[in-house]
Amino acid sequence: MRSGRTRGGGRRRVLASTYVVIMAGGQSTRFWPLGRRRVPKQFLSITGPATLLQETARRLVPLVSWRGLLIVTSAEHAGEVHRQLPRVPRDHVLVEPVGRNTAACIGLAAEWITERQGDGVMIVVPADHVIKDGEALRRALRAAASRAARDNRLVLLGVRPTRPETGYGYIEIGERVAGGKPATFMVRRFREKPGPVLARRYTADRRHLWNSGMFAWKASVFRTALERCLPTVRQALTGVWAAGRDHRGRLRRAYRNLPAVSVDVGVLQPLSRQRAAEPRIVAVRADFDWFDVGSWAAMPELWGCDTAGNAVMGKVLAIDSGDCIVYAPDRLVALVGVNDLIVADSGGALLVCPRQRAQDVRAVTRALPQRGWSRYL
Amino acid sequence: MRSGRTRGGGRRRVLASTYVVIMAGGQSTRFWPLGRRRVPKQFLSITGPATLLQETARRLVPLVSWRGLLIVTSAEHAGEVHRQLPRVPRDHVLVEPVGRNTAACIGLAAEWITERQGDGVMIVVPADHVIKDGEALRRALRAAASRAARDNRLVLLGVRPTRPETGYGYIEIGERVAGGKPATFMVRRFREKPGPVLARRYTADRRHLWNSGMFAWKASVFRTALERCLPTVRQALTGVWAAGRDHRGRLRRAYRNLPAVSVDVGVLQPLSRQRAAEPRIVAVRADFDWFDVGSWAAMPELWGCDTAGNAVMGKVLAIDSGDCIVYAPDRLVALVGVNDLIVADSGGALLVCPRQRAQDVRAVTRALPQRGWSRYL
Repeated sequence: MRSGRTRGGGRRRVLASTYVVIMAGGQSTRFWPLGRRRVPKQFLSITGPATLLQETARRLVPLVSWRGLLIVTSAEHAGEVHRQLPRVPRDHVLVEPVGRNTAACIGLAAEWITERQGDGVMIVVPADHVIKDGEALRRALRAAASRAARDNRLVLLGVRPTRPETGYGYIEIGERVAGGKPATFMVRRFREKPGPVLARRYTADRRHLWNSGMFAWKASVFRTALERCLPTVRQALTGVWAAGRDHRGRLRRAYRNLPAVSVDVGVLQPLSRQRAAEPRIVAVRADFDWFDVGSWAAMPELWGCDTAGNAVMGKVLAIDSGDCIVYAPDRLVALVGVNDLIVADSGGALLVCPRQRAQDVRAVTRALPQRGWSRYL
Repeated sequence: MRSGRTRGGGRRRVLASTYVVIMAGGQSTRFWPLGRRRVPKQFLSITGPATLLQETARRLVPLVSWRGLLIVTSAEHAGEVHRQLPRVPRDHVLVEPVGRNTAACIGLAAEWITERQGDGVMIVVPADHVIKDGEALRRALRAAASRAARDNRLVLLGVRPTRPETGYGYIEIGERVAGGKPATFMVRRFREKPGPVLARRYTADRRHLWNSGMFAWKASVFRTALERCLPTVRQALTGVWAAGRDHRGRLRRAYRNLPAVSVDVGVLQPLSRQRAAEPRIVAVRADFDWFDVGSWAAMPELWGCDTAGNAVMGKVLAIDSGDCIVYAPDRLVALVGVNDLIVADSGGALLVCPRQRAQDVRAVTRALPQRGWSRYL
């Protein structure tokens, strides 16, 4: 059992018995051609010299130290994780034989923690989010983790919406839960990606938060929730980390028939519909800049815009062109008389697409194999 | 003096005392990023393995043999001409110290022919046109050359319009000139690039032809016309090819103050306005496929289109996208939900531009130096 260590006073204390689980198994097809099957976006440098995975780890190390990180990834990408995060102990990189979405991913980490130390709080974060204010994030996650430890809740990090984003999921919050800052609320229901009208209402009514996809709960509490909602997943994962066994073989067998379902759809949403059911779900309301860079359309907020509204990474000459998003570190791009366009060039492949169709980039990755162009995946 | 040689009968006879002057000095800024200052489009392979210059030469060699070709180019590109056309005698590549448009270019060739053989018919063609039916072209040029030799006319090759092209210049023809096939007409006036309404009228009324930019006339007749319309050009070029002199030095001095003016604007159009003036201008009406690939917008006719109207060179995945023009031999291009777009990638530079703005690509080459990106010119 890892013991908590104090590194100076108060805020800087490393959380005891707590792990940060970084989910780094994403395939990110909406980021094509930048995100590829072989190099998904969490391994890429979108915001600066460090990759999104490295940024995520560095933001969270002050909470739990390097030894408090658990990285869940796929066999295909384990090598890349070791390369990018050499300070994470090798046995803290949990390798799924195949990706089965977040319910299985988090379940696997919960089993690992259970096996290693009986129980413990797990903070769960995606590897590919962009958050500039690491201190604000850690403050919120500290609160979430201590709420999870104290109350046996499933704690979500809800971000106060700053714009009517249609690409995010929302949570509707109910009564405030007593005690502590930041404010914590009961979760009433989940709202999947809304249309523009609903998104505007959610942004204005102060009763909705963005579902950040970041969570805190005890491993034991999550296992109970998984048992209630996805018992086959829970049971398949039992004992995969048991000492002295062939983990790889057990994992392969366990994952063979696992359903690919997200923790939101498979666990949190069903639980939220059964009002009286335990464990209950609460949301810590956080205020920090947060980007789920889920598609090219998110880039203007990340990179900023010039006076014509163009958000660019690379050498771009824009003539009579505005509100475009251009990613092309290896080329000069000249835009003449175009608007609201995404132009993204990476690894020998180029995407041209209107901004409002950023989500449809997935269609490219579906169509490539049919044309015999799988090597561009 | 080069003598005519017979290579078989009739149509295949090499024209005596006739030169084909290939104008290969173009800068082709409307073809950026494919055409660069350093490698203008005449040196590029747009239609097949051979470059446009090589195609042009091969089409015309049957008329005048390799020794009947004269290539006018700039100092910057002379080496490329020698490389691409090794069978053209080195002294048949006339090197202008700077480009001064077509009036000076043709005047220079006329002086060379005068110096070498007193007089002779010169057939003048741009190096960058695309013509698939070489035999039809040669038939028309043979007729033009013999008309030029017999009647002392300035003979234009006029192509019967097949579509309301707004990117070409038109000539209005008058009464038919007696004798010979193809039909030959007096030229009444020149019509620069018309709007769509006029272009439709010109295409339908049978009184207009496309100005192909291909000509035939005697060197002596052209010198007379140049003397009348641009006397300073004519005089500056006097004696530059005189035997035993330093041609390069004389050329540099001659070109220093030459006006850059096209043969159309500087010679043919002024003459056509002086009805009684000699030499008179006539047009041989030709019917062959002819493309002045002046901009990306011309490509669909050259490459053909798929069922969605996309004309592509390279690997292109078009999803909900139509009527696009894509040139990207080195990349995979995915189009999602875009229409009527030009996407052209070459030499580390990429253009994205609506089809109807193909002419505005010149603005890119003007703007690049201001941004310090001259290396992409």
